[in-house]
Amino acid sequence: MADQYAASASGTGSSVPALRWEELPEGPVLVLLDQRRLPTEEIELVCTDVPALIEAIRALAVRGAPLLGVAGAYGLALAAVRGFDVEEAAEMLAHARPTAVNLGYGVRRALAAYRTAAGSGADGLQAAAAALAEARALHQEDADASARMAAHGLELLEELLPGGGYRLLTHCNTGALVSGGEGTAFAVAGAAHRVRELRRLWVDETRPLLQGARLTAYEAARAGMPYTLLSDNAAGSLFSAGEVDAVLIGADRVAADGSVANKVGSYPLAVLARYHHVPFIVVAPTTTVDLGTSDGAAIEVEQRPGYEVTEFPGSVSGNPVAPLGTQAYNPAFDITPPELVTAIVTENGVVSPVTEAGLAELCARSRSGNGMMSI
Amino acid sequence: MADQYAASASGTGSSVPALRWEELPEGPVLVLLDQRRLPTEEIELVCTDVPALIEAIRALAVRGAPLLGVAGAYGLALAAVRGFDVEEAAEMLAHARPTAVNLGYGVRRALAAYRTAAGSGADGLQAAAAALAEARALHQEDADASARMAAHGLELLEELLPGGGYRLLTHCNTGALVSGGEGTAFAVAGAAHRVRELRRLWVDETRPLLQGARLTAYEAARAGMPYTLLSDNAAGSLFSAGEVDAVLIGADRVAADGSVANKVGSYPLAVLARYHHVPFIVVAPTTTVDLGTSDGAAIEVEQRPGYEVTEFPGSVSGNPVAPLGTQAYNPAFDITPPELVTAIVTENGVVSPVTEAGLAELCARSRSGNGMMSI
Repeated sequence: MADQYAASASGTGSSVPALRWEELPEGPVLVLLDQRRLPTEEIELVCTDVPALIEAIRALAVRGAPLLGVAGAYGLALAAVRGFDVEEAAEMLAHARPTAVNLGYGVRRALAAYRTAAGSGADGLQAAAAALAEARALHQEDADASARMAAHGLELLEELLPGGGYRLLTHCNTGALVSGGEGTAFAVAGAAHRVRELRRLWVDETRPLLQGARLTAYEAARAGMPYTLLSDNAAGSLFSAGEVDAVLIGADRVAADGSVANKVGSYPLAVLARYHHVPFIVVAPTTTVDLGTSDGAAIEVEQRPGYEVTEFPGSVSGNPVAPLGTQAYNPAFDITPPELVTAIVTENGVVSPVTEAGLAELCARSRSGNGMMSI
Repeated sequence: MADQYAASASGTGSSVPALRWEELPEGPVLVLLDQRRLPTEEIELVCTDVPALIEAIRALAVRGAPLLGVAGAYGLALAAVRGFDVEEAAEMLAHARPTAVNLGYGVRRALAAYRTAAGSGADGLQAAAAALAEARALHQEDADASARMAAHGLELLEELLPGGGYRLLTHCNTGALVSGGEGTAFAVAGAAHRVRELRRLWVDETRPLLQGARLTAYEAARAGMPYTLLSDNAAGSLFSAGEVDAVLIGADRVAADGSVANKVGSYPLAVLARYHHVPFIVVAPTTTVDLGTSDGAAIEVEQRPGYEVTEFPGSVSGNPVAPLGTQAYNPAFDITPPELVTAIVTENGVVSPVTEAGLAELCARSRSGNGMMSI
């Protein structure tokens, strides 16, 4: 794999890619679009080492399951190229956030490339180059997977909703900002838009950090989609009014049984969708499927600081919205059981109904070497 | 009725009452606690005329169905005492906001007292005094109704949840800030707290205007309740984890069939509660029941400006969270059908299951003259 090389894919839908590797005179760096500052400002963060990248990951300057995998791989390469302890960097990076499985996957891919090269007698520089090549390969694979998910997702919509003119509800942000390509769920909406079948994209604002309002609305506006923002609370009224044809979300981890960990607020949408007989569709690459996690109960859900709820997001000095001393419950994700998921769309195809066997079979297509994943 | 007189009830749970009538040397005024500024500041707004009051109602400086009724009655009295056109004031006030039925009810009560006095030969000052006395009577009745709802609600909890130690989820704000007394749903939680059976009050932040974070957390903190704030999205995770014993909400209007209009986000909670077999309890005085509205479809739902969603609430200059030009869907309320409501608690008792006949019977107890309502 060390001879693989792919040009860094730049994000679509934004003038600034979510993430890029750059060779500066002072040495190589990983440049991230600071997603905390969007949509007001397009500011880039330059990471020269792994601790800086970890800080950016924890603070959600860079986020989204597929992109976290790409960032993890580049982070490992950064440590290698700059001569830091690669094994220690891998350990730190893989545990920067607990729920998204892609982060550890990306780190392991680059680490394996590094080790393979080093084990074949390559020197430090050559092994580092192998890690970087692997990160670039993963970046390109992720872009390719986006395109394939978009195509499979659009086919599924055509099958489920033969009337066309889709009114799709989405939650959180799943576009070019989370991926080397056009993203996951958002890429499907984008595909529908290109064939002029997207009647309306309903964008949940996604409290507490407002990724829907700040990021998905930003990407939808840039793509010229017909979109409307709503507070997450108002989704129920849309279902009641028959204004939602399907829900499309991404995933941070899919367990072997098809349980889906995704941004908090996904599960209530799944329950509403079931109550209203509306398809609930999860779009995620097979790298997000963790066959080592048996079911939803085995997924660790990240608990985030209470101030994300008690203070207004993005305020530097803290802009309290609740009385001082207020305790907050702030899980970053929730778990939707497979029986509430109509279909999971991957780059290898669609599993519907969602079964453990069906999911394993789709993953095997990648992991057997016929697909794009090679370890 | 013109001889009725009740001392103005001051709110409990806050050092500053939500609303009070004051006789200043310059003339009488209606003084409102500006709820938009809570919890950061306790600032009072002084209304010297009906247009100022209407502005305060539309801007949500004063809000909550029962309190809107009281404010409407005092507003009518203010117009009368200050010599403005009473019929015109009544018309303007009653339509300041469309969904809460109490506003029109309070205005009509004070107007009827005014007309009765005027029709009996009273002069303008005497008729105005009659309107003011009626407003004060309504204020006191509302306080009494709160206490009775709290008692009935606590009995219902004891019956439904014999184990005690309640973990109650509430949405929006239903405490002393919305009532002449302790409120509606919040008053039931307060009663449970006083008998040491409130294990946890889960407080939905209630986007977009954060009445839960700003107001309910403020009232819960002052009452010394064990409470935890959450983004509305996270309620699903609490249900999944079995952490919610009952949902308690108020109402802005209850139709004759038992359909409940309440703050947007109530309906998704009702669907979640049903999916998880958790009681969903609505607490509202009979003044909130509108037997003239046949069902949920007949309730007009107020659509509020999109900037409440696209900008951070409370920011004077506008603090955008979404790209400029973003369109937002912002219904203030949603409708929960009676089949999802376990019980409606009124000051006259509880209706469960919720039926049109049961609801009408409870209302008749007030309206027959045996209860507290006198027109």
